[in-house]
Amino acid sequence: MKKALILLGCPESPSQTPMAVYVAQKLVKMNYDVMIASTPSAAKLLEVSDPDGYYIKNKTDIESSLDELEQGQYDLLVGFIPKDAAASYFITFYHILQCESIALVFEKDHELLEEFEQMISENTNAKIVSVRAFHNPTPLRVKFDRVLKEL
Amino acid sequence: MKKALILLGCPESPSQTPMAVYVAQKLVKMNYDVMIASTPSAAKLLEVSDPDGYYIKNKTDIESSLDELEQGQYDLLVGFIPKDAAASYFITFYHILQCESIALVFEKDHELLEEFEQMISENTNAKIVSVRAFHNPTPLRVKFDRVLKEL
Repeated sequence: MKKALILLGCPESPSQTPMAVYVAQKLVKMNYDVMIASTPSAAKLLEVSDPDGYYIKNKTDIESSLDELEQGQYDLLVGFIPKDAAASYFITFYHILQCESIALVFEKDHELLEEFEQMISENTNAKIVSVRAFHNPTPLRVKFDRVLKEL
Repeated sequence: MKKALILLGCPESPSQTPMAVYVAQKLVKMNYDVMIASTPSAAKLLEVSDPDGYYIKNKTDIESSLDELEQGQYDLLVGFIPKDAAASYFITFYHILQCESIALVFEKDHELLEEFEQMISENTNAKIVSVRAFHNPTPLRVKFDRVLKEL
């Protein structure tokens, strides 16, 4: 079974937790074994968001998972990038794992969005889904679905 | 079967969608038939957050549900109140339905939080769960669970 790792950053955007569930569900349907690595607050939101554990089976702390990370551990990396800290995490995970990678970059502010996008494109060969988004998850969802079909 | 209506306001807080799923699941387990009335953007977030429709069975638009609302239609009203517009909706629904009601008031800013809380307490006899919250859903979840036990 192929393995996918979803990286969640600081949950400031109302879209992040819903989209994380969406991405996890999509990957499970594609027969990926899915692990979500996140900050503690993002993990709490996931737990509340899926109280029966129907969508999210495996969660880990982003810091401790990085400590034990090795090349080949995952076949796919999907990173949520709503902040520069999340971009740095994604780049670090990308270079250790060296697997197929998708960066979901979303921000309200145009300049910040471009900045995060540039950080990812200069430092990785990840596929980038970039959307000026906050409330409305649809543009992010539609673009993500499109990239997933290219895998 | 008892019927509950959950009201969702503008989804600016990252806690709202996860907590809406949590509240819906709790009420279903208590044998309520649950309907969620929300703005279109809150509805989109719910769809992404529960792609298999495991938690959320019934959704409606907040405006059109208000048009058809009648006393006795629901046994329990639970309103998410992250904004003054949501407080006004809650008060309106409360006075038409005249049923047991819970207001979940949450805001980052102390003054706004107090203002919303005051709006609800001056205009209704709803039970109020009030929390200074944004990222972390735990205080809201714990206080909601406590109020639910008093029903």
